[in-house]
Amino acid sequence: MDLLKKRIQSDGQVLNDSLLKVDSFLNQQIDPQLMLKMGEEFAKRFSGESITKILTIESSGIAVSVMAGLILNVPVIFARKKKSVVSNEALYCTTVYSFTKRESNNIIVSKKFLQEDDHVLIIDDFLANGEAATGLASIVEQANAKVTGIGIVIEKSFQPGAQKLLQAGYRVESLARIASFSNGQVNFL
Amino acid sequence: MDLLKKRIQSDGQVLNDSLLKVDSFLNQQIDPQLMLKMGEEFAKRFSGESITKILTIESSGIAVSVMAGLILNVPVIFARKKKSVVSNEALYCTTVYSFTKRESNNIIVSKKFLQEDDHVLIIDDFLANGEAATGLASIVEQANAKVTGIGIVIEKSFQPGAQKLLQAGYRVESLARIASFSNGQVNFL
Repeated sequence: MDLLKKRIQSDGQVLNDSLLKVDSFLNQQIDPQLMLKMGEEFAKRFSGESITKILTIESSGIAVSVMAGLILNVPVIFARKKKSVVSNEALYCTTVYSFTKRESNNIIVSKKFLQEDDHVLIIDDFLANGEAATGLASIVEQANAKVTGIGIVIEKSFQPGAQKLLQAGYRVESLARIASFSNGQVNFL
Repeated sequence: MDLLKKRIQSDGQVLNDSLLKVDSFLNQQIDPQLMLKMGEEFAKRFSGESITKILTIESSGIAVSVMAGLILNVPVIFARKKKSVVSNEALYCTTVYSFTKRESNNIIVSKKFLQEDDHVLIIDDFLANGEAATGLASIVEQANAKVTGIGIVIEKSFQPGAQKLLQAGYRVESLARIASFSNGQVNFL
């Protein structure tokens, strides 16, 4: 998606040979117009599928997912990273390790939001080692629902996540695929 | 806002005399069409102001804020509840106590996203004791920017937050104002 790639090149900051910071339009400050365009792009790429729900994870996946949900006219569920006191009903749960934050989190989704006949589009901001996407897929499968596909904003193709998800049989659609970072520059696939 | 009030009455769960659960359309599952309508309503109520940015807090404030940002055509910033490893620059920080979760969190915003000439609309999902909104306002004021107003999805008017914010001189616009819960029912103001 050219609009996104240009934005990464103009506003992204390459922190080292594996970390890209895009907090000026995605991870802390959000550009709503760009989110809408990305939501439209996900909706277009998965237009042949009968998606019934979108599943993402707090916090950076929410904005783009809500825009995709607006276009596809389906609810968006976001997995929470820990149990809140208000919640006391049955939960789907799995553990996700974040290499960036160097910590493991339980991610949880209330069982009432996923049914066996759901066709779920998983959306997340980054795909690196595939931990979050694999965790979200595990939650969908715990519900005996179907993972229709995985939509990713920024795929770091030099890390093993995309390959891992493809090998597991998932359809992966990434809006920007990064081959490498070199001298502070982003090289797309 | 009638659409929201009807949704609270049909889908909200009154847990006790002060807690309302709306995780089927706002706090875990999100209804994107409702978020758009609420974003439009905030944009309408604050249309006379020259808002330059929206500030919210992860996670439940993000969806409606992004819709308001889409209509008002301004960036949305979400305060994070703790410092992530990627972030190493200057931050605005304050402490917010959550009565629901019974915990204190540091909330942080990168300094680069708020400037002195910003006119900021603060948006959050719930207003009860006013802790989160007060914390967000403090961050805006640390930046010497202006709090143009505070937009709330659900105000629990029987708790002290709204009064506290009004007394502090802020304009508060709540889409649904709850007078009380009685026998599992929601009574609006």
